[in-house]
Amino acid sequence: MGGDYGPSVVVPAALDALESHPKLSLILVGDETMLSQQLARESRSYDAARVSLHHASEQVKMDESPAAALRFKKDSSMRVAINLVKTKEAHACVSAGNTGALMAIARFVLKMLPGIDRPAIVYSLPVNVGQEKMGRVRMLDLGANVDCQGEHLFQFAVMGSVLAGAIDNIPNPRVGLLNIGSEAIKGSEAVKEAARLLSETPITNYIGFIEGTDIYQGKADVVVCDGFVGNVALKSSEGVAKMLIDVIRREFTRNFYTKLVALIAMPILNAIRSRCDPSQYNGASLLGLNGIVIKSHGNAQRKGFKQAIIEAMLEVEKNIPEKIGSEVQAYLGESKAV
Amino acid sequence: MGGDYGPSVVVPAALDALESHPKLSLILVGDETMLSQQLARESRSYDAARVSLHHASEQVKMDESPAAALRFKKDSSMRVAINLVKTKEAHACVSAGNTGALMAIARFVLKMLPGIDRPAIVYSLPVNVGQEKMGRVRMLDLGANVDCQGEHLFQFAVMGSVLAGAIDNIPNPRVGLLNIGSEAIKGSEAVKEAARLLSETPITNYIGFIEGTDIYQGKADVVVCDGFVGNVALKSSEGVAKMLIDVIRREFTRNFYTKLVALIAMPILNAIRSRCDPSQYNGASLLGLNGIVIKSHGNAQRKGFKQAIIEAMLEVEKNIPEKIGSEVQAYLGESKAV
Repeated sequence: MGGDYGPSVVVPAALDALESHPKLSLILVGDETMLSQQLARESRSYDAARVSLHHASEQVKMDESPAAALRFKKDSSMRVAINLVKTKEAHACVSAGNTGALMAIARFVLKMLPGIDRPAIVYSLPVNVGQEKMGRVRMLDLGANVDCQGEHLFQFAVMGSVLAGAIDNIPNPRVGLLNIGSEAIKGSEAVKEAARLLSETPITNYIGFIEGTDIYQGKADVVVCDGFVGNVALKSSEGVAKMLIDVIRREFTRNFYTKLVALIAMPILNAIRSRCDPSQYNGASLLGLNGIVIKSHGNAQRKGFKQAIIEAMLEVEKNIPEKIGSEVQAYLGESKAV
Repeated sequence: MGGDYGPSVVVPAALDALESHPKLSLILVGDETMLSQQLARESRSYDAARVSLHHASEQVKMDESPAAALRFKKDSSMRVAINLVKTKEAHACVSAGNTGALMAIARFVLKMLPGIDRPAIVYSLPVNVGQEKMGRVRMLDLGANVDCQGEHLFQFAVMGSVLAGAIDNIPNPRVGLLNIGSEAIKGSEAVKEAARLLSETPITNYIGFIEGTDIYQGKADVVVCDGFVGNVALKSSEGVAKMLIDVIRREFTRNFYTKLVALIAMPILNAIRSRCDPSQYNGASLLGLNGIVIKSHGNAQRKGFKQAIIEAMLEVEKNIPEKIGSEVQAYLGESKAV
């Protein structure tokens, strides 16, 4: 029910995902009347055995405080969907709703994995690997945690490494710590402490500090930072990309001549757009929970929301929470042994 | 002597600046032989009365530790140039060298203004104001200070506001605090404390929290954050811009047809490039010092370094350190009165 568009995006995206992934089944959680109407409006055939509706009488508003959502919205679509993961009626929950509320409810209902203190939000970002296809980097945390300690950053590194290894099929993912320089003397106390912890264990393939410019150059498969820094990095990147695209659009629509050139250049401009299309990276995981919860960007369209569903499906297939749990247990065992 | 190119960029840029600004005089500090050779190599006429050479036998290396540079390089071009500001033989110092060393030496030699705890690095960034010309935002701190307190962010806000008011001719510059959301409950403790301090005094036109995406949309004239966050925001932005430009270049040079289109679109592509040309924003001020020191980007070319010289000249004309000093004194007087 959440996000900027609610069922009008979620329902068609769900049908798209069902169509392309035969093993997938979906439970649409929310206002049953609205959902049925939207399904009817789609007027397309789908495998009805693989879609069910689950009524929820309330919904969490986009600007509602996480604490209030947790306390008072016991029958919100978000809460009900997460409950379904808890009771194992669903393998994963995908939501485009209020991030803070999703995090708070998921943490309360599903609990953290043993050995993990805080959930982290991990995004995929495009990286330029100098080839036809863009690469992909997993970056975390992107907003769940401000004021992190080194130990938290260390846990993020372990979780991100598991995800990149399992979902992106990278055998030994390179983990970088985001810092303001590559020298060991630079950076905040938390970053230095995390670097020390990561250097002392072989549990992740830690490659050292990386800088903001390196994120998009494919120097690491996993980039670790606290939620404040990550959120600012992500949103600044979005901001500068939007500015560049606006400038390009303005110059190409300036007058009759430039519009003609734009028409000629259209296949190239479309190719550029499709390479950098953010919808193919949509679907942020809430890692560290005892269950799979995926956050879709609030303004994701049909293609983006479908991608978030596919991310959830992949995490189910690869059993991400269990993998993270056993990595952390292995680490804790190892540190005890020392 | 510093930066990626040394005198081969600095000398021609200096002559360009002299040519376009008749009131300007320059002292070139560094290896006298190298500087004379470079001047001779330029083979152009210039007003010799307005250029002098000042020999310095050493130079700070780009990867040298600030502490070592401060302690052992007493006759480096950087140290000598800052000494000239101290003794009032120069009004300002411009350097493309090692940022950390420049900061440490400037702080040691020039001292801080009373009431300011730490120097801050302030950059200009382009913003999209939906018009022909791009706007400009001043952002600080961009790397001098990690682990800031609210009080430091407050001081950055005051300094940035003075700079934007005096140099960018903005009567009442809008000051925003960079945060991960616009709600008061979000953010780190330091940011919340800074917000409280800024709300309680009319000394700056504080407009509240702004997010990463807002930086490039012209929502504020001054954006305040700690050095870690600012550095990551700046470098992530550079990284994503570089990635987009690389993708555009690749698509336009893919084959004969796309190259032909590129040729036709050349005037448009050039217009886009010139709008976003970073050299026009080069020249970062080290604010809070008792003197004017401008840091040019290490990889700045001639046009960029000239811009840094012009920034220094404007700050001299507007007497920035004195203005900051009196704003801070006014604030301190006001808080004492309360």
